[in-house]
Amino acid sequence: MSPESFWEKETSRLEAFSDGVFAIAITVLVLELTVPTVDPSVSLGQGLLDEWPSFFALGTSFMTILIMWMNHHNMFSYIRRTDRRLMLFNGLLLLFVVLTPFTTSLVARHLSDVDARTAAAVYSGNFLLVAIVWNGLWRYCSRGHRLLGSEVTGDQVTAITRQYYVAPLAYGAALVVSAFSGLASVAVILIVAGFYAVTASLGK
Amino acid sequence: MSPESFWEKETSRLEAFSDGVFAIAITVLVLELTVPTVDPSVSLGQGLLDEWPSFFALGTSFMTILIMWMNHHNMFSYIRRTDRRLMLFNGLLLLFVVLTPFTTSLVARHLSDVDARTAAAVYSGNFLLVAIVWNGLWRYCSRGHRLLGSEVTGDQVTAITRQYYVAPLAYGAALVVSAFSGLASVAVILIVAGFYAVTASLGK
Amino acid sequence: MSPESFWEKETSRLEAFSDGVFAIAITVLVLELTVPTVDPSVSLGQGLLDEWPSFFALGTSFMTILIMWMNHHNMFSYIRRTDRRLMLFNGLLLLFVVLTPFTTSLVARHLSDVDARTAAAVYSGNFLLVAIVWNGLWRYCSRGHRLLGSEVTGDQVTAITRQYYVAPLAYGAALVVSAFSGLASVAVILIVAGFYAVTASLGK
Amino acid sequence: MSPESFWEKETSRLEAFSDGVFAIAITVLVLELTVPTVDPSVSLGQGLLDEWPSFFALGTSFMTILIMWMNHHNMFSYIRRTDRRLMLFNGLLLLFVVLTPFTTSLVARHLSDVDARTAAAVYSGNFLLVAIVWNGLWRYCSRGHRLLGSEVTGDQVTAITRQYYVAPLAYGAALVVSAFSGLASVAVILIVAGFYAVTASLGK
Repeated sequence: MSPESFWEKETSRLEAFSDGVFAIAITVLVLELTVPTVDPSVSLGQGLLDEWPSFFALGTSFMTILIMWMNHHNMFSYIRRTDRRLMLFNGLLLLFVVLTPFTTSLVARHLSDVDARTAAAVYSGNFLLVAIVWNGLWRYCSRGHRLLGSEVTGDQVTAITRQYYVAPLAYGAALVVSAFSGLASVAVILIVAGFYAVTASLGK
Repeated sequence: MSPESFWEKETSRLEAFSDGVFAIAITVLVLELTVPTVDPSVSLGQGLLDEWPSFFALGTSFMTILIMWMNHHNMFSYIRRTDRRLMLFNGLLLLFVVLTPFTTSLVARHLSDVDARTAAAVYSGNFLLVAIVWNGLWRYCSRGHRLLGSEVTGDQVTAITRQYYVAPLAYGAALVVSAFSGLASVAVILIVAGFYAVTASLGK
Repeated sequence: MSPESFWEKETSRLEAFSDGVFAIAITVLVLELTVPTVDPSVSLGQGLLDEWPSFFALGTSFMTILIMWMNHHNMFSYIRRTDRRLMLFNGLLLLFVVLTPFTTSLVARHLSDVDARTAAAVYSGNFLLVAIVWNGLWRYCSRGHRLLGSEVTGDQVTAITRQYYVAPLAYGAALVVSAFSGLASVAVILIVAGFYAVTASLGK
Repeated sequence: MSPESFWEKETSRLEAFSDGVFAIAITVLVLELTVPTVDPSVSLGQGLLDEWPSFFALGTSFMTILIMWMNHHNMFSYIRRTDRRLMLFNGLLLLFVVLTPFTTSLVARHLSDVDARTAAAVYSGNFLLVAIVWNGLWRYCSRGHRLLGSEVTGDQVTAITRQYYVAPLAYGAALVVSAFSGLASVAVILIVAGFYAVTASLGK
């Protein structure tokens, strides 16, 4: 086996592991939803409508994790080699991805009570941490073309680096907004995901 | 790496991620089943028989997700390239697949009470949404041969497009039936899966 | 893409999906274990010892699913092509694999009460169904060399067919034993797994 | 298919299955976290702070499983072939990995009560068992170069064998420490993970 194929195998196992964690985290979100129990005074339809914060939070987290996975996928089409520091960076990234079902639950259960702002601060803070680690990971891989494929141009690197600045700013804004309104903070995160989805669709 | 192999790698990671979500969703269904507790007045056998709606719903969802996975598998033998819009379409598809364990729980717990019709409407509505997104995804990929392999013929595309019309009609019918009987609605969905399994077996 | 590589890709996605379901089912077993709560009159060590049926059932199911996965792995080194009937057979197999965490819970919670025999009957019955579907799947693939690689000899097929008879007999025996003792029935299943592990180790 | 590629396929499926189990176990850790309920006398922020043992245990287990996965990944870059004994060894390894979310829960719930030492003993004992099986697996594969790639040198084998001695000693130390303090025992395990992460980063 040539050194080239050795490293490519390594990258593919890192991607497969990450895919597994993304796929599980995104599916485990559903465990947060609870089936309304039988209650003679409330219809099931009403019971489901009353759970709107859960559906709102699940939809926001699903779209956000999906877009993170898409970007991870895209980022690793530039990263051709892996080393242990990249694996640790990626591991830290996955730690915050894994926490998402918990912070989603937190915001779902508290979005309509007095703790909404605290819950939204933890939720947006979680995504902010993902975004910061993400930028660190990319910086590490791209500095001096360390782990990139040789066909990646400097202009591409610069464009990607700039593009990745958006996420920390957006989630930082959501964190600031959470000091005023939990609902608005989660809405910011959903809008970020929607905005990304729309521009991605137009872009290509 | 040639552009060809680049895109094929992308397709394979999209398929792997989807497989992960399908596999997790289909396995998480079992978490809905509850072990009957010790009750001196009811034997364990009786307790399990009383849980029949759970087994009925689990079997229906398992068969339906399995067949969706098989069709996904088949559809992606025609789709050779991927772009961000396909990834978003596929993500939306997976969102409704991920919701299946929840809607299955809903129908399992309410199939023998007054809320059976509401629960079955949500359940069949969930599958209807999967089927509608599915058709949208296929249309997007197949229009003008956008993302298909060059060896796929126009006749094949037409045949597949027609075949995919069946699912929205069937789940739409199940949704209509749910207005009259929850049990009958779930039965329609199980029959659809069984019918597909039988014709698939005869077909090849 | 030549037809050969097309089918090989199909087999690999079937294997990947099955691996996912096996991996999730085997990991979900741990969710059955419950942390003993603080109780001043019972030490945590004692509380854990009192949970022995859970550990016993988890160990038995883990070993059994692991060996099924190994055999699945081995069987698919002979099966070179796939068709929709094989996918349905394999799906039915996975349905019973997916039920394992539930039947494991059932036996863990009832192994030391009056319902032990019923629970063990369901548990061993579940594995018996896996074994029966397994034999059907192999028969379907191997009849007339339908889906096997061309290098597989008739003698190999005969040897494998014979080897696969053991599982239905063993789990059938465990089912019969469950009529007399739940504990003994589960012990039979653990012994079968241990016996397979030992002979596998000696064999190669 | 040449014998070489046959075995390589086998190794890749073993790695994929292991990756699946590692990815699921690491993600299931989050299910341990519970959302503090609404309590007028305690703020949500305080409720989350009171859950610190859960976050501490989750972080420790996450880092430890991540590093195990990285080492598994690295070890299998030397192991080129597989046989049934290796699959059983690897299965035993995965059994203890699968137990990690349970032992993590155990330590999280009891770290601040009288059972902290018992919980930490089970937790560190679990990792000690992983480390012992790991060493057995490596010994089995490396003895007489049994399952290694032909390009692996004797010096490499010796270096890896020595490196793998560290884990049983470290987790054995954590087990001894658990007799005196549960918190200190978990801290030892976190420090081991941190130490590995730092040296890995410096090393390459």
